Amino acid sequence: MSPETEPILEDELRDAWPVLSPRDRVEGFRLLPPASADDFFLSLSSQEQAGLLMALLPGERRTWMRVLAPDDAADVIQQLPPEERGTFLTLLDDISRREVQALLAYEEDEAGGLMNPRFVRVRPDSSIDEALTYLRKQAREKVETVYYGYVLDAEQHLLGVVSLRQLFQASPGKVVRDVMRTDLVTVTEETDQEVVGRLFAEHGLAAIPVMDSQGHMKGIVTVDDIVSVVQDEATEDIQKVGGMEALDAPYFEVGFVAMLKKRAGWLLILFVSEMLTATAMARYEAEIARAVVLSLFVPLIISSGGNAGSQASTLVIRSLALTEVRLRDWWRVMRRELLSGVALGAVLGTVGLIRILLWQAAFHSYGEHATRVAITVGLSVLGVVTWGTLSGSMLPFVLRRLGFDPASASAPFVATLVDVSGLVIYFTTAEFVLRGALL
Amino acid sequence: MSPETEPILEDELRDAWPVLSPRDRVEGFRLLPPASADDFFLSLSSQEQAGLLMALLPGERRTWMRVLAPDDAADVIQQLPPEERGTFLTLLDDISRREVQALLAYEEDEAGGLMNPRFVRVRPDSSIDEALTYLRKQAREKVETVYYGYVLDAEQHLLGVVSLRQLFQASPGKVVRDVMRTDLVTVTEETDQEVVGRLFAEHGLAAIPVMDSQGHMKGIVTVDDIVSVVQDEATEDIQKVGGMEALDAPYFEVGFVAMLKKRAGWLLILFVSEMLTATAMARYEAEIARAVVLSLFVPLIISSGGNAGSQASTLVIRSLALTEVRLRDWWRVMRRELLSGVALGAVLGTVGLIRILLWQAAFHSYGEHATRVAITVGLSVLGVVTWGTLSGSMLPFVLRRLGFDPASASAPFVATLVDVSGLVIYFTTAEFVLRGALL
Repeated sequence: MSPETEPILEDELRDAWPVLSPRDRVEGFRLLPPASADDFFLSLSSQEQAGLLMALLPGERRTWMRVLAPDDAADVIQQLPPEERGTFLTLLDDISRREVQALLAYEEDEAGGLMNPRFVRVRPDSSIDEALTYLRKQAREKVETVYYGYVLDAEQHLLGVVSLRQLFQASPGKVVRDVMRTDLVTVTEETDQEVVGRLFAEHGLAAIPVMDSQGHMKGIVTVDDIVSVVQDEATEDIQKVGGMEALDAPYFEVGFVAMLKKRAGWLLILFVSEMLTATAMARYEAEIARAVVLSLFVPLIISSGGNAGSQASTLVIRSLALTEVRLRDWWRVMRRELLSGVALGAVLGTVGLIRILLWQAAFHSYGEHATRVAITVGLSVLGVVTWGTLSGSMLPFVLRRLGFDPASASAPFVATLVDVSGLVIYFTTAEFVLRGALL
Repeated sequence: MSPETEPILEDELRDAWPVLSPRDRVEGFRLLPPASADDFFLSLSSQEQAGLLMALLPGERRTWMRVLAPDDAADVIQQLPPEERGTFLTLLDDISRREVQALLAYEEDEAGGLMNPRFVRVRPDSSIDEALTYLRKQAREKVETVYYGYVLDAEQHLLGVVSLRQLFQASPGKVVRDVMRTDLVTVTEETDQEVVGRLFAEHGLAAIPVMDSQGHMKGIVTVDDIVSVVQDEATEDIQKVGGMEALDAPYFEVGFVAMLKKRAGWLLILFVSEMLTATAMARYEAEIARAVVLSLFVPLIISSGGNAGSQASTLVIRSLALTEVRLRDWWRVMRRELLSGVALGAVLGTVGLIRILLWQAAFHSYGEHATRVAITVGLSVLGVVTWGTLSGSMLPFVLRRLGFDPASASAPFVATLVDVSGLVIYFTTAEFVLRGALL
């Protein structure tokens, strides 16, 4: 057996996949035995599938495009360069092509873009045995989920749903209408995928029907499609919280330049905003010249505000994303965060005050007015932490209200926002406490 | 109809639930019609179920405990105060109690703690029709997922899995062994739930079998249980990235004092570490006294490093969590982040340099040596951003290597870490560039 034709294992290919070149991916993929190749192809993300398809020959492309369910085929086509999409659509059979074209009309992050238009329809007056036979027949054809039958009237309105299990358990004399469930969780075509994910998590469902605005059932979203959605949404939020644009792809698959662009934008905005601190500091240049000791605590003061703010904003961002907290709760959150800010600020301020007094006692680090300097720092930390907590917690509400993603209230964004006001709080406090002494 | 007995809708109760007192929750719950009460109870989180059960009468407790599947009952019992757990276990029937006790032995975040010990067993030499009849019989009993049959030999070793759909599609003459799939994704009892979530997302499965160390099948984890796990893990990571301990509960359900504790700990650690900046600044007190203009750019310099660092750390944290990047990839990430850091630093440094020269031309803000100050700031930003990016990207690897959660490399943590070194870079650069001029 020559090394080139040695069967390589699906698992090995899967492990090596991220570091392989497109050419090596194709070669490895072609070496898989047919049954594994099928599994392997279906286990790839739609982005990886698109990349692989682009590298395959036209005949192979046709084969693999036809392996995909319509919703997955639509996802792959959305990942292709626009000029290739038409060619790939022609590889599908007529029925699938029409379904995929219908799906492509939806936004990718809406329920309509996630749904599978193929589901099992059952009539309300069918007998249990008729329904079971019908489900069994549909299983032979191309229906992704045969475990639920959707009970529709003649106008395609959804009356109820019946699970295979309910049909199994029912006494054969009954009809579908007798055993179907009518208290249904449904979504519309435009429902955001984040909301769909939440419904799955809350209700522990296997599939959710998608309705159009006239109440006709258009398809189903299945739970196996939603796990990766929930994960992707969380990744997006985490990256935004960390202060960058969402990447939308694994780390090593984003080109160096594309990655720089995603990161430089936010960093530049933050940098330019942060330049306001230089302007603010310049206003207090005379005070600093008279009392250089004040400048020593500038990093400590502004970072306390930034840390408290990023904590509060992260907390509110995630609670909003999970709808644990809603827009209308802003007032309750504000009262609570105001109290939290004062409490946290009092703790940190006291620690800061004691630290300065201790260093002064031990090393005489801060000159003859050390006690007043300590009081200035303690009070400023109290003020800055309170203000940071308050603005950090309110910023996500403001962004949501203005129609932006609350997750953009990233830790660095909040820190930058709080830095200038932190300096103002600090030097204003210093003017009061140190007047007649150092200033 | 008196207002007290008016039937309230399930949806209304669900909306009001978070803000209701325990007493009001019980009253609302008792007013639900029996069918809705069932759905409503099952849709609550295990924490909410535990809270509700504690507030109910003993007879009601028995009824509702017995509604729960063994894995869900185990989750509820873990949420109860330790002294109550025994009492609640006695409310279950003998078989369920033994199953729940077995599940309680697992860590909550392992596959063993998520799994349902009830699954459908099929023999490999059963005919298709026998298997179908058997599945149908099991559906009448208490098995959560009847859609997969697990093919076990006499020693409980897993040979393969057969879906209801495959049984439907198979020609009746065959036996289970002929149609079962043997390339199985399995987990062990100790597999971390984050890994389990990833397997579901990668393979699009409905259920994953759980094996013990001897290769015996112990139960299944179903996809509907994993959606909330994926969401919870993401919440934990986001909260850590934002610089606090994970809350493990919705915002409004965490008491004020408990919340303060979760937040104050990290803030204090960061505050005490940040005090090193005061020590670092004190080393340069003489330089600041001679060139106060230097102090103006301290916030700008250190925040650039912090922002770049928190961006890089967040990126690596999430990539590690999704296994897009593995521990052994640290070297590739380091090379790439070094280049990114230099590129980002060059962009920001240039902007900083130009800003100072422009302000000088317009307002003569920075004295006679403004050009040298501009060069100092430009070079320092380059150095600080490079250093911030590098340390931010490497810190999660170091934490993972030491056995800590990489998500603890939060934005505020990285920023604090980078602040002191940022000051050293800045003032060292200043000593070189401004020697003979301002210093």
